[in-house]
Amino acid sequence: MTTSWRERPVGIVGLGLIGGSLGLDLRRQGLEVRALVHRESTAERARQRGLASQVSTESAVLQDCGLVVLALPLDRLLEPPTGLRQALPAAAVVTDVGSVKGPVLQRWHHWHSRFVASHPMAGTAEAGVEAGIEGLFQGRPWVATPEADTEAEALESVRQLAQLLGAQWLSCPAAAHDQAVALISHMPVLVSAALLQAADQGAQSADDPAQVAALVRQLASSGFADTSRIGGGNPELGTLMAQSNREAVVAALGVYRRQLQGLEQLVEQQRWGELQEELSRCQQLRPDFL
Amino acid sequence: MTTSWRERPVGIVGLGLIGGSLGLDLRRQGLEVRALVHRESTAERARQRGLASQVSTESAVLQDCGLVVLALPLDRLLEPPTGLRQALPAAAVVTDVGSVKGPVLQRWHHWHSRFVASHPMAGTAEAGVEAGIEGLFQGRPWVATPEADTEAEALESVRQLAQLLGAQWLSCPAAAHDQAVALISHMPVLVSAALLQAADQGAQSADDPAQVAALVRQLASSGFADTSRIGGGNPELGTLMAQSNREAVVAALGVYRRQLQGLEQLVEQQRWGELQEELSRCQQLRPDFL
Repeated sequence: MTTSWRERPVGIVGLGLIGGSLGLDLRRQGLEVRALVHRESTAERARQRGLASQVSTESAVLQDCGLVVLALPLDRLLEPPTGLRQALPAAAVVTDVGSVKGPVLQRWHHWHSRFVASHPMAGTAEAGVEAGIEGLFQGRPWVATPEADTEAEALESVRQLAQLLGAQWLSCPAAAHDQAVALISHMPVLVSAALLQAADQGAQSADDPAQVAALVRQLASSGFADTSRIGGGNPELGTLMAQSNREAVVAALGVYRRQLQGLEQLVEQQRWGELQEELSRCQQLRPDFL
Repeated sequence: MTTSWRERPVGIVGLGLIGGSLGLDLRRQGLEVRALVHRESTAERARQRGLASQVSTESAVLQDCGLVVLALPLDRLLEPPTGLRQALPAAAVVTDVGSVKGPVLQRWHHWHSRFVASHPMAGTAEAGVEAGIEGLFQGRPWVATPEADTEAEALESVRQLAQLLGAQWLSCPAAAHDQAVALISHMPVLVSAALLQAADQGAQSADDPAQVAALVRQLASSGFADTSRIGGGNPELGTLMAQSNREAVVAALGVYRRQLQGLEQLVEQQRWGELQEELSRCQQLRPDFL
């Protein structure tokens, strides 16, 4: 199997957290990295940070690349900037980093013959051209969601890229990926957001609303901070995930609602032994997810 | 106002996380600490760790104390070990550290004339005689819930104790405290536990249950770990909180359920602008709770 992609420049479209981190790591590995960005101000800052060997706002920068990573936010990936599709070399392997795979494949499957849908599951709270860091993908899952007619050599190229970055390679159908991330990432954002709303709104029905409203803020500790972290995160991102993975998120919310109702019933009906059993099962479950 | 409690030994009943940490800090402040524990093995280890000046399994150890802290788990506080009530000097100020205040006051209000209900809100994941650490209360809230006939001098003594330990003193009615902790501590445990159950159960309704069950475990990241932390915590503690603060927990769960339903509707009805507004409000809310 040829590994020709490594003998040519690697293209990156977008130099935010993922694109910038990719650029830093690939350059450290001795590869030539050519990046396409939207704004000249981003290009300048990316050059200063050394995120790529060459950074341009002109799509021609991609023309000699053997592999191109579309490191765009999901909405721009699904509705690519004018000219991007035409700028991708037909001979290049093309992959993306989107966190929902069904809608990406629906489009890109037809748009590029050597497209491989993938999702490196790495992140920090940062975004933008300052966000990229070295080693972001080290030890993190990198999930590919090939289809029956995904080209084997293209898939192998993306696997090698992930391996080069120290990521853990996984492969599964897009539907399974999207259902899994709905359960462990997208639905939990809404569960966590509702907690912030409830802590804020719950005081209103208290005996002394103003006093309880002040107390919840004074008394919230690290447990509440942890449980509310993702619900207080980037609203555009949370919305975009729900929007592009709606069916799986609605299903996951349904499962969640039934589980919570079950616990609520145990409390209402004072079935303390059963509640403790359920909580014990949760305590046993959690290490599997760490 | 007399501060006579400082001129006499301080008593601590129970040397777990809270009791042990109290002992270490008070001794560091030069106070004499006398501790009553249940088992001789605990007493021995507590002596080795220097958690108190004197540790005994005999309740007579408390007889000269000017202030006694009942650092017992909530269930034992509500149903005290035989002989404990009789062992508390009538002249001593008595306080507790229970995380629900209504049921504690219901009992202890009648059991000791100088009782002050209080709740130092400090903790770690540890428990038992090895758990106590120095500085646990530093900068943390210490909430007292006095009643109309709580003795002013007794209340002032407990305030001084909290201040000595570097805690932030707060005072409010027991009902307001219990409603607030239901919203930010007890209900969130169930919200977080249901998330673990849903991530586990959600795979069952997926197209390929076994594959999704494996994926959720492989792909869960720091966001899921944070959101599920308190749900995967001590099951006895979670049950005890729900049990002793049932009314407020049920009310808080009701508020939570309505908030989550609201978000779920926005997703189902594809009202993305409104969803983003709600998530923006959550993002703005969260810093108030940190």
